[in-house]
Amino acid sequence: MIDTAKLTIRMGIVRTFADMKSTENPWQTLNSSVPYENPWLSIRHEEVITPAGTPGIYGVVSFKNKAVGVVPIDADGNTYLVGQYRYALNEYSWEIPEGGSPLGTVPLDSAKRELKEETGLEAKKWTEIARIHTSNSATDEEGFLYIAEDLTEGEHAPEDTEDLRLWKLPLAEAIDMAMTSRITDALSVSALLIVARLRGI
Amino acid sequence: MIDTAKLTIRMGIVRTFADMKSTENPWQTLNSSVPYENPWLSIRHEEVITPAGTPGIYGVVSFKNKAVGVVPIDADGNTYLVGQYRYALNEYSWEIPEGGSPLGTVPLDSAKRELKEETGLEAKKWTEIARIHTSNSATDEEGFLYIAEDLTEGEHAPEDTEDLRLWKLPLAEAIDMAMTSRITDALSVSALLIVARLRGI
Repeated sequence: MIDTAKLTIRMGIVRTFADMKSTENPWQTLNSSVPYENPWLSIRHEEVITPAGTPGIYGVVSFKNKAVGVVPIDADGNTYLVGQYRYALNEYSWEIPEGGSPLGTVPLDSAKRELKEETGLEAKKWTEIARIHTSNSATDEEGFLYIAEDLTEGEHAPEDTEDLRLWKLPLAEAIDMAMTSRITDALSVSALLIVARLRGI
Repeated sequence: MIDTAKLTIRMGIVRTFADMKSTENPWQTLNSSVPYENPWLSIRHEEVITPAGTPGIYGVVSFKNKAVGVVPIDADGNTYLVGQYRYALNEYSWEIPEGGSPLGTVPLDSAKRELKEETGLEAKKWTEIARIHTSNSATDEEGFLYIAEDLTEGEHAPEDTEDLRLWKLPLAEAIDMAMTSRITDALSVSALLIVARLRGI
C-alpha cells in the first residue's frame, strides 16, 4: 500500500489523499480494433482521450501468456542459467529459466513445466518472490518470479524451436552478471537481485 | 564476457567453446512485412526457419525509442518516484522517472530531459548503471538505467498527455517497494535493486 501521507506535489505542498487526484483510470477509450494477431500476442489499436482531455491513439501490445521466471538454487548454492539466441533482439542472451503461462493457466504450474523443460530440474520447494510488468508503456505483459529449491535432476526436453545451452554456476556469479549487464533480461536481473537481497548474498 | 570453461551441458559433460554451438544467429528469416505501425512501435511479421530447422513465424514488436530510467538521489538519501495510470496495464503504477529516447538520439540526453520534465530536477552527476532488455521474447526494447546526483530543483513540465504525481521518499523505502512488488515496473525494480547493491543499502 502507498502511504498517502507521504505523497507530495511540487512546491512543497503536502496534500491528503482526498485532495489528490484518484488512482482511477483518467483515460477514455473511444474505439478499439485488432490490426495484428499471432499465437503469442495481439495489437489493440485504440482511439483515446488522454488524461489531459486531448484526442490521441494508443497501440497496446497484449500478450497471450504471462511470463514466468525461476531462480533454481541447489544445495551447494549454485543456480542454472539458460543461453539462447533471442530472435527479437538479434543477440545471444543468458537468462534464468523462463517462459510463458497461457492466460487462464496457473503461473506456478507453468514455472514448474518451464524449469523441467529447459533444465531437467524438478523442485520440491517453490517460493513466489515477485509480480512484475516488463514493458508497461506499450504492453500488458505481466510476469511472476519464483525461487525453486530442493532440486532433483532429470532429463530436459526443450521445445523443438529452442536451441538452448545450460550453465550451472554459483548463484553469486549469476548475481554479479546481473549487476554488470552481462545478463540484460529484465526478468532475470530483477529475480536475481531480489534473491540476492532476500538471501543476503 | 562469458567464461566458456564453465559452460556445461546435461549429464555432467563439460565441453570447450569449440565443441559448443556458437552464439551466432541460428534463425533464418525468409520474409518480413509490417502489418502495424504507430509513432512508438511497429510490428515485423516474419516467416522464419527455427533453430530446429522447422518453418515458423515470428512477430517482433520493434520500438522506436530506447527506454531510459533514472534513480535520482538527493543529499539526504531521498529518491523520487512518479505515479501514473498506465493505459496498457489498466493499473496505477509507481516508477522511477523514465521515458523514451528516440532511436539515433543519445540515451543520457533523454534521461536528463525526462528527469527534468517529470520531476523538475537537474543533476550534475550522472552514472550509467545498466543496459537492459525489457521483454525479449517478442520485443527489441532496450533500456539504459542511470543514477542522478547533485540535484537541483526547478519547475517540471510533464508532457500534455501525462497525469503524473511525484513522491519524494527515502531511497530505502523505494527499494523496499521494489522488493515487495508495490513497484512492479521491471526497469524500476532492476534500477532500484542495482542501486541498493552498489550503495550497500
